[in-house]
Amino acid sequence: MSKSCPTKILLSEDQLPKQWYNIQADMPNIPPLPLSPQTLKPATPQELSALFPMDLILQEVSTERFIDIPDEVQDRLKQYRPGPMYRAYRLEKELGTPAKIFYKYEGISSAGSHKPNTAIPQAYYNLKAGIKRLTTETGAGQWGSALSVATSMFGMECRVYMVKVSYQQKPYRRSFMEVFGAEVFASPSNMTESGRKILAQDPDSPGSLGIAISEAVEEAAQRDDTNYSLGSVLNHVCMHQTIIGQEAKEQLAMVDEYPDIVIGCCGGGSNFAGISFPFLMDKLQGKRSLRAIAVEPAACPTLTRGVMAYDYGDTAKIGPVAMMYTLGHDFMPPGIHAGGLRYHGDSPLVSALYQDKIIEAMAVKQNDTFKAATTFARTEGILPAPESAHAIYAAMVEALKCKESGEAKTILFNLTGHGYFDLAAYDQYLAGSLTDIEYSEELLQKSLANLPKIE
Amino acid sequence: MSKSCPTKILLSEDQLPKQWYNIQADMPNIPPLPLSPQTLKPATPQELSALFPMDLILQEVSTERFIDIPDEVQDRLKQYRPGPMYRAYRLEKELGTPAKIFYKYEGISSAGSHKPNTAIPQAYYNLKAGIKRLTTETGAGQWGSALSVATSMFGMECRVYMVKVSYQQKPYRRSFMEVFGAEVFASPSNMTESGRKILAQDPDSPGSLGIAISEAVEEAAQRDDTNYSLGSVLNHVCMHQTIIGQEAKEQLAMVDEYPDIVIGCCGGGSNFAGISFPFLMDKLQGKRSLRAIAVEPAACPTLTRGVMAYDYGDTAKIGPVAMMYTLGHDFMPPGIHAGGLRYHGDSPLVSALYQDKIIEAMAVKQNDTFKAATTFARTEGILPAPESAHAIYAAMVEALKCKESGEAKTILFNLTGHGYFDLAAYDQYLAGSLTDIEYSEELLQKSLANLPKIE
Repeated sequence: MSKSCPTKILLSEDQLPKQWYNIQADMPNIPPLPLSPQTLKPATPQELSALFPMDLILQEVSTERFIDIPDEVQDRLKQYRPGPMYRAYRLEKELGTPAKIFYKYEGISSAGSHKPNTAIPQAYYNLKAGIKRLTTETGAGQWGSALSVATSMFGMECRVYMVKVSYQQKPYRRSFMEVFGAEVFASPSNMTESGRKILAQDPDSPGSLGIAISEAVEEAAQRDDTNYSLGSVLNHVCMHQTIIGQEAKEQLAMVDEYPDIVIGCCGGGSNFAGISFPFLMDKLQGKRSLRAIAVEPAACPTLTRGVMAYDYGDTAKIGPVAMMYTLGHDFMPPGIHAGGLRYHGDSPLVSALYQDKIIEAMAVKQNDTFKAATTFARTEGILPAPESAHAIYAAMVEALKCKESGEAKTILFNLTGHGYFDLAAYDQYLAGSLTDIEYSEELLQKSLANLPKIE
Repeated sequence: MSKSCPTKILLSEDQLPKQWYNIQADMPNIPPLPLSPQTLKPATPQELSALFPMDLILQEVSTERFIDIPDEVQDRLKQYRPGPMYRAYRLEKELGTPAKIFYKYEGISSAGSHKPNTAIPQAYYNLKAGIKRLTTETGAGQWGSALSVATSMFGMECRVYMVKVSYQQKPYRRSFMEVFGAEVFASPSNMTESGRKILAQDPDSPGSLGIAISEAVEEAAQRDDTNYSLGSVLNHVCMHQTIIGQEAKEQLAMVDEYPDIVIGCCGGGSNFAGISFPFLMDKLQGKRSLRAIAVEPAACPTLTRGVMAYDYGDTAKIGPVAMMYTLGHDFMPPGIHAGGLRYHGDSPLVSALYQDKIIEAMAVKQNDTFKAATTFARTEGILPAPESAHAIYAAMVEALKCKESGEAKTILFNLTGHGYFDLAAYDQYLAGSLTDIEYSEELLQKSLANLPKIE
């Protein structure tokens, strides 16, 4: 096989998946419905419809195995999809491993990550429901960039609440969103009640993802012409990302391969869901065995150190409450560079699969991820985002285990995005000044004590 | 045709061109050999071999129509090639033009531009000749990034002299090169005689491409283990880029198209050569008629306002002297953001074709290019480099002419790279503070008066 496997495995445009895969059709335990933050009772579709269009609410609770991707969405996805799959020949050689390492590369999208895979359908379903304006939050900026590109594709308006510390540290992410016509505000802002409350207590608040979500949700809830859009965590978001894994399956089949191990970095969980769920379908249906590993930062170890519980998704407690692995909605993760992985909770779908031991999780330190990313760049010629570097590190660990055991396992990981906006972090790594910031166990315990009490 | 033409036309890896096209086989007038800067007589292969390996020197003067691409080079090119071609459906709709607009996108390479197309073969031929260390210059950083990636692919060393003002303004370009293992110095530096001379006169010199070339050439000439690598201008560089046009030809043929107009931005000339030469072959052989337009900045109008003459390629007059369109080696172009187009000379091949009226040229103002780039981003979903924006602007001009005349012409342009490192410039454009810096006619005349006198 190896000899005939190209470096890059491509699909033609007509091989773009026509349906999303909904893992709720195959899971042994489906996560419970989200709760209303006001009543702490299951949220009604009416409550959710203040934020989301009905099509997405129905996708959220659907148990259909496959859901059609509308033509208009396929058309926009084709701007960058199907995405390439690479065989990491040079990395394998560098590691001296008999393992075969493959990776999907999502950095070729306009926004530079996998995020447009869900931004495009979310914009589409909102427009279809007559909504021409979306709000959202963004941390490091990947999600805000993706939604800006998607709304500009459909001629919609977009307002992004960007975590203030990122707004200041990454001015070019803001510029990127503005080029695509979005309005960007540093959060906490004066635009919302949630923002003003925080600023009154602490005018210099650096902001957090939880605060920015509160602002975006508040505005969407109050304005009839505006909905809210979330870039990860939710069931429909995870489902939209399954085109990654479906493509990967088709691409591996073209070279007669099937993965023994599938790896994705994990913050809110959507890219991990995207690469792994189509393979987990085979596992859940008893057709294949494989390991799926969600890789999270040691500084924000939601799956490996959190608890499975109902929790708020945002700081102001105005968004839906979900059953998920969480570090507590008050948990403030240390300022690691993988901003996309700094979230206290995790996707309910990924959480349920982890609780049922269908998937594994692993927590990784910051310097290890940058070391892996630099080795990857120098061998494979692609500069990875710090988030993606978590998956690279785990793939290297598994490949080195194969070197020891002599097994020629097939390893697949998701390279979620490029690192062009993260070179300050690489600078610190190369200068030896990057630290492995630890989270505080004491603060974690305090935060876990603040979980909502649900009967 | 339109209905069946996909948004993205892809080639599989085995469709990568196996040969470069050498336009010297078909030109009516081949440019004369470069001269030695010392003697101002034709440079001998021995003189050139202080800087370049013999394989590249032979390519420089070859009149063979096709030259094989070595397997090892093809293997590395496959990291990102064949590159995608897009049909700009949404841009066409925005302009309301009957024209069909296609573009090749080179921003998917590891270095983010078309530059690795020549960096990889240059690194390869040097390594084959026993050279394990290369020097080069870089302005905005695209070329230095490409050579850093290419040398890292072959396990070679790389030293980059980066124009000081860019080194300070674009620290992340430097970081990028360092991630790939290159050493980067701000030029003028203390490492070379040329650099020290400039610093003695002006310790605060912002540097220029001409000065940086002098430093890189000087070091390569003095060290036996080191050669010099140039990212544009030279014949072999233009030839390496012809894989772009060859792929484009194959991709257009797949949808039964052939361009009426081919457009590339033009600084040193290599990307314009790359996209246009394979089509110009048909024109020179009398098989097809088409227009090819080289688009340059109004601030550095080499073809449209320069003269065809022998001139030095660098400020310190230590590199080869070429017959080319030039603004004079003393000409200091204003600080436009399209740093890759700020060069006083132009490729001898492109210059000869322009003199023979086989190609056209057009000069464009900075604000017009950013306006075009923003429209392009919002419709096509890709953020262009400021250099590439010159080609976009010209394509839009031609498409709007079609709207007026009602002609459904086929327009092809080369989108050379992404603009992720250029967002400060977009910021200025969006804020309305970007100026259309003019060059000084007085300084141009002064500079032209300093051309070397050749008998």
